[in-house]
Amino acid sequence: MFDVAIIGGGPAGVSAALNLKALGKNFIWLSSRTVSKKVALAERIKNYPGLPDVTGSELGWTLNNHCESMGIKLQEEVVTGVYETDGKFSLLAGDKQYEAKTVILCLGVETSKPLEGEEEFLGRGVSCCATCDGFLYKGKKIAILCTDKSFEHEVEYLCGIAEKAYVFPMYRGYEIKSEKAEIILKRPLKLSGDMRLKKVIYKGGEVESDGMFILKGAITPSALVHGLRVENGHIRVERDCSTNVAGIFAAGDCTGRPYQYAKAVGEGNVAAHSAVEYLAKNK
Amino acid sequence: MFDVAIIGGGPAGVSAALNLKALGKNFIWLSSRTVSKKVALAERIKNYPGLPDVTGSELGWTLNNHCESMGIKLQEEVVTGVYETDGKFSLLAGDKQYEAKTVILCLGVETSKPLEGEEEFLGRGVSCCATCDGFLYKGKKIAILCTDKSFEHEVEYLCGIAEKAYVFPMYRGYEIKSEKAEIILKRPLKLSGDMRLKKVIYKGGEVESDGMFILKGAITPSALVHGLRVENGHIRVERDCSTNVAGIFAAGDCTGRPYQYAKAVGEGNVAAHSAVEYLAKNK
Repeated sequence: MFDVAIIGGGPAGVSAALNLKALGKNFIWLSSRTVSKKVALAERIKNYPGLPDVTGSELGWTLNNHCESMGIKLQEEVVTGVYETDGKFSLLAGDKQYEAKTVILCLGVETSKPLEGEEEFLGRGVSCCATCDGFLYKGKKIAILCTDKSFEHEVEYLCGIAEKAYVFPMYRGYEIKSEKAEIILKRPLKLSGDMRLKKVIYKGGEVESDGMFILKGAITPSALVHGLRVENGHIRVERDCSTNVAGIFAAGDCTGRPYQYAKAVGEGNVAAHSAVEYLAKNK
Repeated sequence: MFDVAIIGGGPAGVSAALNLKALGKNFIWLSSRTVSKKVALAERIKNYPGLPDVTGSELGWTLNNHCESMGIKLQEEVVTGVYETDGKFSLLAGDKQYEAKTVILCLGVETSKPLEGEEEFLGRGVSCCATCDGFLYKGKKIAILCTDKSFEHEVEYLCGIAEKAYVFPMYRGYEIKSEKAEIILKRPLKLSGDMRLKKVIYKGGEVESDGMFILKGAITPSALVHGLRVENGHIRVERDCSTNVAGIFAAGDCTGRPYQYAKAVGEGNVAAHSAVEYLAKNK
């Protein structure tokens, strides 16, 4: 049982990790990508105090080296669900499970808009996790929105289970081999159904489908933690970075604008301190 | 008329200044001390992301150089009052006055407790500003709490005005020459009076006094801005760093714990963005 689990490897996660380490806490740090990959795409940064005029990759390496110098390691794993039991949290990451007393969410933001109907049918046909929900679709028809080549192994896994899979790759150079896959080179527009998902509508057509897997890097916060209060796509936090779920804190872009490195490290720091305070009160 | 006035030269002020510069705003930055003096006293810092294991003075110089590299200059002046007129702000600093559309308070925290009665008699005998209020005490009896040698010129100024001055120096090696000054080497404990201040009580005695000047580096936020909402000694801010006074924002230690550099730069960033948004809405 960890004291704290940090989910997310951007600057907010780095800042939380540095503080938890300094405060002597037993924590795990999980992220779909390494620190340097998370910030590598950033333009030139001039307003991060103390590092004048750095590129995204320079900042990434600097943060990465800072963590290494303190013996902190990030585990590259995708967390697909956080579940509360008796005030403790279970984190699912592929076929692994981790237990922690508190969680700090540093999820970043999805830059793409959710599909029309995505949130409505979440848990009623829509899933963000092949490993978690794939088995529910044995012998059924599914659709898969694949946003990045790195998710193709999940597409193959789902094709192995389903009877048929309509695959929407959102990038160039896809390599999906399964014979059950039917590639559709259009953007899905809308999900429809009644109690459960029934159809995926795309530009110029539609397919009947029992399920829709949306495979993307950043997971929608409300999909990750059931009952988490989200407003306009951002996790609602108080000044101490606490969320509406006791023991869960959030920091960085996922809590709202401005999307800035300085803000992210500030909130990572605050969230770590708040988590430690929460642990002290809930021994 | 400046778009923004930043008060305070610590890391929150630095972060606000970097962002206002990057956003092309016309701002003034006032502080009682330079950036490097503000953080020079800090212990070794290991949790400021991107600068592993720096001393306070190293961080101070790094922040200072960052500002210089962007052509940002701090003016070493003590702001003693912020007054609102028609939605604009006047800042008094000694005998100078500056006008700004918005203000970002990065005041740090007072580590010493206020005297008993200090806030009660503020504006009714208690003043934090010799230049502002000294003239009110012509030919009267005053007390002066002087917390640092650097304020001795204000003590001399007040002695020149008053009939008599009871001076409480809170440091060694004082050099106060005025014949009107009576030095009391005790700590003031309590201020008393009715509608106005009448007495200053110290350990082992008391003096009758029409006014009490408290000369210290960081000014109490509520003394600086009339009507500013302060809770437990901290300026109450929302998530966007706005205060209860429209157009006034606050960042860093003055908004509350944790007292951390990362939090301060995060809030300085947020406050700058919020001020810019406010300016856009209130053209």
